[in-house]
Amino acid sequence: MGVIRLAIDAMGGDYAPAEIVAGVVEGARDFDLNLILVGDPDALQAELARHSIDGLPVEVVPSSGAVRMDEDPVQAVRTRPEASINVACSLVLQGRADGVLSMGHSGASGIAGLFHFGALPGVDRPAIVAPLLGLRENMYLVDAGANTEVRPQHLLQFALMGAAYVECATGVSRPRVALLSNGSEANKGNKVTKAAFPLLAAEPKLNFAGNIEGSTLLTSDINVVVCDGFVGNIFFKSTEGVIEALLTEVEAMLSSLPPEMATHLQPRLEALKERNDYATYGAAALVGLKQPLFIGHGHSRAKAVRNSIATAQKMIQQDVLGRISHVLKDVQATAVG
Amino acid sequence: MGVIRLAIDAMGGDYAPAEIVAGVVEGARDFDLNLILVGDPDALQAELARHSIDGLPVEVVPSSGAVRMDEDPVQAVRTRPEASINVACSLVLQGRADGVLSMGHSGASGIAGLFHFGALPGVDRPAIVAPLLGLRENMYLVDAGANTEVRPQHLLQFALMGAAYVECATGVSRPRVALLSNGSEANKGNKVTKAAFPLLAAEPKLNFAGNIEGSTLLTSDINVVVCDGFVGNIFFKSTEGVIEALLTEVEAMLSSLPPEMATHLQPRLEALKERNDYATYGAAALVGLKQPLFIGHGHSRAKAVRNSIATAQKMIQQDVLGRISHVLKDVQATAVG
Repeated sequence: MGVIRLAIDAMGGDYAPAEIVAGVVEGARDFDLNLILVGDPDALQAELARHSIDGLPVEVVPSSGAVRMDEDPVQAVRTRPEASINVACSLVLQGRADGVLSMGHSGASGIAGLFHFGALPGVDRPAIVAPLLGLRENMYLVDAGANTEVRPQHLLQFALMGAAYVECATGVSRPRVALLSNGSEANKGNKVTKAAFPLLAAEPKLNFAGNIEGSTLLTSDINVVVCDGFVGNIFFKSTEGVIEALLTEVEAMLSSLPPEMATHLQPRLEALKERNDYATYGAAALVGLKQPLFIGHGHSRAKAVRNSIATAQKMIQQDVLGRISHVLKDVQATAVG
Repeated sequence: MGVIRLAIDAMGGDYAPAEIVAGVVEGARDFDLNLILVGDPDALQAELARHSIDGLPVEVVPSSGAVRMDEDPVQAVRTRPEASINVACSLVLQGRADGVLSMGHSGASGIAGLFHFGALPGVDRPAIVAPLLGLRENMYLVDAGANTEVRPQHLLQFALMGAAYVECATGVSRPRVALLSNGSEANKGNKVTKAAFPLLAAEPKLNFAGNIEGSTLLTSDINVVVCDGFVGNIFFKSTEGVIEALLTEVEAMLSSLPPEMATHLQPRLEALKERNDYATYGAAALVGLKQPLFIGHGHSRAKAVRNSIATAQKMIQQDVLGRISHVLKDVQATAVG
């Protein structure tokens, strides 16, 4: 495979386009890949002018407008082909890019991905696989927010896609998979997770460890946590809110220390904060599409954009789509409409 | 109202009966109420013998066995009337106690409550109202785990019961109510929360503030967070796990300090840990029953049992059931089977 070409929706995200452009410039300097900024050409050129980009493989492709958070994403994606996420996806279909990265409206990104690329055979619902927390390595959650309503078979597909993705992302072979539930016992769960349990248990391609509770998750050896996208989204946002509140209290506590002690601890506190800040992580993948699509945190600043580019590059190079297709090939029979 | 009499299931919880008995002795010393320990009489007398209880209003009522976590709770409650939770509930029906407190199997406690007491008119599903976090005062979540499947009307009932409870518990009048969702916009949610949204918005007895995300919850002015019991349980356990992991990291960080500094910070760190430990909180209430039933954390030690007793006493004295009945009286028309 040649040099990866990544199309980046430069108009999506809370700090677009300035931080997206800054992150893309960093990524172009640090990694060996070609980056295509999709967005308002004047705004992008103005941002690029703030950086020294001589010789960097950064290109601008014009688009007009972006999907706003208060819009109906299906309607917006369908009726505005000139919007940045649509133009970014079309570059892949035209053979001009190998994948898309967006920090914008994640629902709209997913819909655009499905609309332009379609789902892999055996996949009814693409899902978001996101690294869990800085507190725990090699742990990912699927679905982090793409599907608010699922059926048991969808959770099985999420588990299979998640495991294939996590193998590529972490190198862990036969990653341990668990259903996020309200109790560790096999009889715990809601209607959908209870019905999914035997499907996951019976699937030989999965290394299924049963149900897991949030209270023991972080000290467990689970690699792939499976849940619907409503629960997954609430999980991520709630833990994010708690971490932020708790670290604020820790900072207040440390402010009572003599200055030299506070100075001594500052780098460690910063490291702890950064490690627990979702916005510093690489993008999550929307798995199950026929082309690679990565979704970054809406709060992403330059560093997060840079890290997301690295994640996208790695996963495309490792042919994560090929692995997911392969895993799903034989389980197509279980797919539901 | 005379002195409150509280029946305590002394056989339920991870540290039963030792810590339950110790907490009951503390409660009997600190508060003006009569406490009835329900459990294996030999075990309870042996535990009581470790304390000086002369003159304390603590009584023992014998029972045989408790519902285990791996049992089917419906089956266990129905077939074993001699189990501790059943005996505790029957004391209320016999007029010997004003309410029940249990640290045991929360599902079984709820089923026993429904079985013995029945639901209030207008209530289809009793729900657990639990104080949210030490990070935020006057914030409660309902349902914290009683109902894994709900319909939109149930979420309306949870909201009304939760608001009535929180008024009693906190003194906040017209508490602000929000639906926990995957986005703050009115169009976000799963099928059930989306259908519940207009019901809550149209109910004049509610001070409804719309959807809320976990990421902004702790910095919001919401008092009652409404969700189904599957999501609520996962919310509590996941945030608990994250808090524990994060505080472990903070402790490790502080261990690099010189001993005198560490000593200086120790009390503040302990306070932070305690405030963020669900097990130190007072019990949650199972609201919607015809009699008061309180459910403590399974990890409760003596102090948590003592605090739970205080919560139960306060809520019974304030006639929280009367308030909930009053609120639900006029909305009975919306009740579904």
